[in-house]
Amino acid sequence: MDQVRGLRSRIERAGANVASRLGWASRGGGGRTPAPAAPLGDEEEALDGWGFKDTRFVVKPDGHVTLTGRRYNISGLDLPKLLPWLSGILQAPLAHDNRNVPHYPPAVPAARRDEALLEALRGFLRDDQVSDDPLVRLRHGHGHTGAEIWAIRYGRLPRVPDLVVFPEAHAEVERLVEVAHARGACLIPFGGGTNVTDALRLPVDEARVVVVLDMRRMNKLRWVDPVNRTACIEAGATGRHIAAELAKHGLTLGHEPDSAEFSTLGGWIATNASGMKKNRYGNIEDIVLDVTAVTTRGVIERPAVGPRESVGVNPKTFLFGSEGNIGVITSAVVKVWPLPEVKRYASVIFPDLEHGFQFLYDLQQSGAVPASVRVMDNTQFHFGQALKPASKGLAARLKSRAEALVVTRIKGFDPHKMCVATVVFEGTAAEVAFQERTLRAIAARHGGLQGGAANGERGYQLTFGIAYIRDLAFEHWAIAESFETSVPWSRALELYERVKRRVELEHERRRLPGRPFFTGRLTQVYSTGVAMYFYLGFYAKGVADPVAEYAALEHAAREEILASGGTLSHHHGVGKIRQGFLDEVYSEGARAVIREVKRALDPDNLFGASNHGVRGAVALAGETEQAP
Amino acid sequence: MDQVRGLRSRIERAGANVASRLGWASRGGGGRTPAPAAPLGDEEEALDGWGFKDTRFVVKPDGHVTLTGRRYNISGLDLPKLLPWLSGILQAPLAHDNRNVPHYPPAVPAARRDEALLEALRGFLRDDQVSDDPLVRLRHGHGHTGAEIWAIRYGRLPRVPDLVVFPEAHAEVERLVEVAHARGACLIPFGGGTNVTDALRLPVDEARVVVVLDMRRMNKLRWVDPVNRTACIEAGATGRHIAAELAKHGLTLGHEPDSAEFSTLGGWIATNASGMKKNRYGNIEDIVLDVTAVTTRGVIERPAVGPRESVGVNPKTFLFGSEGNIGVITSAVVKVWPLPEVKRYASVIFPDLEHGFQFLYDLQQSGAVPASVRVMDNTQFHFGQALKPASKGLAARLKSRAEALVVTRIKGFDPHKMCVATVVFEGTAAEVAFQERTLRAIAARHGGLQGGAANGERGYQLTFGIAYIRDLAFEHWAIAESFETSVPWSRALELYERVKRRVELEHERRRLPGRPFFTGRLTQVYSTGVAMYFYLGFYAKGVADPVAEYAALEHAAREEILASGGTLSHHHGVGKIRQGFLDEVYSEGARAVIREVKRALDPDNLFGASNHGVRGAVALAGETEQAP
Repeated sequence: MDQVRGLRSRIERAGANVASRLGWASRGGGGRTPAPAAPLGDEEEALDGWGFKDTRFVVKPDGHVTLTGRRYNISGLDLPKLLPWLSGILQAPLAHDNRNVPHYPPAVPAARRDEALLEALRGFLRDDQVSDDPLVRLRHGHGHTGAEIWAIRYGRLPRVPDLVVFPEAHAEVERLVEVAHARGACLIPFGGGTNVTDALRLPVDEARVVVVLDMRRMNKLRWVDPVNRTACIEAGATGRHIAAELAKHGLTLGHEPDSAEFSTLGGWIATNASGMKKNRYGNIEDIVLDVTAVTTRGVIERPAVGPRESVGVNPKTFLFGSEGNIGVITSAVVKVWPLPEVKRYASVIFPDLEHGFQFLYDLQQSGAVPASVRVMDNTQFHFGQALKPASKGLAARLKSRAEALVVTRIKGFDPHKMCVATVVFEGTAAEVAFQERTLRAIAARHGGLQGGAANGERGYQLTFGIAYIRDLAFEHWAIAESFETSVPWSRALELYERVKRRVELEHERRRLPGRPFFTGRLTQVYSTGVAMYFYLGFYAKGVADPVAEYAALEHAAREEILASGGTLSHHHGVGKIRQGFLDEVYSEGARAVIREVKRALDPDNLFGASNHGVRGAVALAGETEQAP
Repeated sequence: MDQVRGLRSRIERAGANVASRLGWASRGGGGRTPAPAAPLGDEEEALDGWGFKDTRFVVKPDGHVTLTGRRYNISGLDLPKLLPWLSGILQAPLAHDNRNVPHYPPAVPAARRDEALLEALRGFLRDDQVSDDPLVRLRHGHGHTGAEIWAIRYGRLPRVPDLVVFPEAHAEVERLVEVAHARGACLIPFGGGTNVTDALRLPVDEARVVVVLDMRRMNKLRWVDPVNRTACIEAGATGRHIAAELAKHGLTLGHEPDSAEFSTLGGWIATNASGMKKNRYGNIEDIVLDVTAVTTRGVIERPAVGPRESVGVNPKTFLFGSEGNIGVITSAVVKVWPLPEVKRYASVIFPDLEHGFQFLYDLQQSGAVPASVRVMDNTQFHFGQALKPASKGLAARLKSRAEALVVTRIKGFDPHKMCVATVVFEGTAAEVAFQERTLRAIAARHGGLQGGAANGERGYQLTFGIAYIRDLAFEHWAIAESFETSVPWSRALELYERVKRRVELEHERRRLPGRPFFTGRLTQVYSTGVAMYFYLGFYAKGVADPVAEYAALEHAAREEILASGGTLSHHHGVGKIRQGFLDEVYSEGARAVIREVKRALDPDNLFGASNHGVRGAVALAGETEQAP
């Protein structure tokens, strides 16, 4: 062995020479720069709805709408068209004085207590790392499905966690798992709490003490390696923290789901997330090189991680889509990119959805796909228009009318059919120029009219502000939610039409008020198909159980999706909301394999989130869920 | 329900209208074209070495080498330089009359018989689907490690399979699994038998009747869908069959490992394979959308497959890298691509490996990476030169000398340092033009000299012919093999230097004859690092146990690789050859998770291939392995 060590040191000197010959010391070292702790969020999140506490849509007495706060491109603007447009679509009297006043907070069930467990936790956690505050427990017992937000505002949740803990280091998570396991508790990891799958909602009959691990204090960039374009990040870091911290090193992760401000790295892995710019940066499974996680069988981790490997069945893969069922993700090694040299936007107007769709299909095949490209249907196009502020000044109004004239008169586009594509380019100047050239040529071939970069940029910025609209709808008696799928190209428009008609017919059949709001966009492209994102809602004043009616509509929509070759989910996941469909998308053998793996890795069901029916479907709420 | 069905049919009509509006009927239907059965290979493979039976390197009495047959770009040519060059490198007297004559076939251990099992198999298999022929059993008990080929040529295998079966349909595989399970046999899936990891080699103490499933009769293209760019292919189809069948539809899979002629789709999945053109087409995990497999828990399959999904922990992921431990893969749905509009080659000569490496690093970051780009070290550059035929005619000789003059005199390149990059471009004309432009600019920045398309193409074609050289070496007393890794960019050259010096020093320390043959190439690029491929060999005449000495050298090389931040394998896999290193690359918890998953999915170890130490390390050969 000594002889080998002797060889080693001679060889190591040779290796060091190579690194210095390459001059990488000056390029960032090729080493791992320890990064300072990310700041804790000093920006308070709302407990009773989406997003930041300072941001919400409000209807003013004159019927104009405004988004409070100063965070988004539409914040503070006067939006006169939104409410009339929504009222028209829903055929319902949305108005300032027709308000469905929320009753948040609801009654919160008392916590089950286990003194011995508390005692054990106090052995290694500070007081501020453990909470049994009712509102803290409530917030950790749900995500962001419409049903959940409706329940906390207008009903209640029959079962919420008994204790919330805030680990600050991997070793604390290991001890938490040990202690909870020993005490026979149930453990549920919590990232940003933004899932829309009921993944955090507790089964009503969960009799054990339920402890939720809020991972958000584990938000540090452990190291960055600019030469090898990797970083190690703790699982509780939110998208906005990651973006801010990496930017200090001139880097980006590029992962931008609509929830990026609030959702976390660990949550992205556990739900198999997808970001808007996946064409450039990949989906989460492309981005994450390695995962460290605590299971009841021990810690899944690796001393080093390579670019790509063939090293047997890699246990990291079990964490993708695990939705809390298998263990707690504590950190991950991810690919990072230099901040793009160039970032540009574009928008293209097409005469109808079919033309936009054909454009998208051909663009995908061109080998010059931009970081993001989405095609909005006619309703969503008008939705975007309805979110425009009052034009200020004659010049702006004239310009706007002139633009409308070009599109409808000169090009002959039908305003009731036309649709819009919005595009984000990122990359080197040469890459972006190549992509722009290619896109323009393909758009022209399909009758597209360039709509300008400003409209493209506005469309993307809107994504984050628009997330608050669901809660506005609730407050004015409309229940609404989004859902998504992916589908082979050849069946995408068929799927769109079928889902649209089915929800219209179901809405009618159930004698729900007004007309349903339905809109879709083609939101991600793959060589083999496209991801589609839908919004669905209806006016629910006077409806006995709006949540149940909405669920019935979405269920019908999902039936159409599956019957049209669509998938159960492109990126939202299964959680509990879609557990009933799993037998339609997996064989019995596949379900058995999943069940056996869960049993093998967590025989006592310590991780009792009970998602995707891993131990059979669970009941979420009894008759007591709706407030009396 | 009737009401719903009524809705459905109205909706379906609407959907059909969309498809017809898009005019996809004429573009291939957007449907699935059932494809005819792929032809069975009528091209006989060698039993005693690599590749086709008609192809092997032969040293002629004048010392010139030739490759028999007519399959490859060097087949039938007179290669005068090869043997002198190899002799020089190895410092060993390779010659026509200095031959290590193989003793193939070796003695084959008698088969263990289970009459009841045979009886059960005859219930659903024809006679020609079951074989206990000794040479058939022998061939199904090994892959293509140097140790295995040396054993069948100069020693023996102490344990080989007892029975080989040739299923022709998924249902037969299901019954085989059932019957073998019921009879307490051991079942091992066999693809092309080209692994270089001892994955097919049996543990010497396997006491059960071992049945090998040769999957190669399951080689049909089930369907192709040109619009959605997908195909369903049976797992036993070899790369060359898949390429030929898809080409009939104007399509390609694009997956081209060096073994593509012989290796199979199922084998690629089970070993987590990588192909030369992965920059365009992806590695196997990017290519495969879904896997159908038979396990003891049932059949893992899905009624439909989408472009990308979030549907819980997907059991298909357990098959990637499973190396026969979990079940039998029977088919897969894969992405396909139109045959490229343009395919072009290039080569660039650099003054030394460092320059070539820097070029590769910058090219990877350019956003214009060609389908394949590889950088060969100086030894491999000269290896390519040594494989050139005798120049015919004065003009050819003058041209060749003139070229050499330009490189060495005018550019001042040192022939003992310079290296070469070979490049394959595939894509649309615009894509390829963009990539070529980018590559030329980056190459120039690093002192690269364009070496011409012909040299680039020759380099790639050589890949397939060169695979036969290992067996030539054996026949002339040199033992040689390849191994590979992936490594972060910043440590790649350090790793190269360390491995090179370590094998030189170990070779010296062990007092092996002559000098070692060592060469490497940078063979795949990733944003986070690079894959490296090495050849290692030495002259072994008079060495007591060449296989053990080679193993010791490769083991030392692997130690250096791991110590330099390299991975255990980029794409070869673990098998049994690297099982001893697993504790260095996975945590105890990760190993426990893998073990528990195996136990859960295959409690009786029916699939007893025993790879990657899933049930602990296994012994492959006792003292009896070497022939007396």
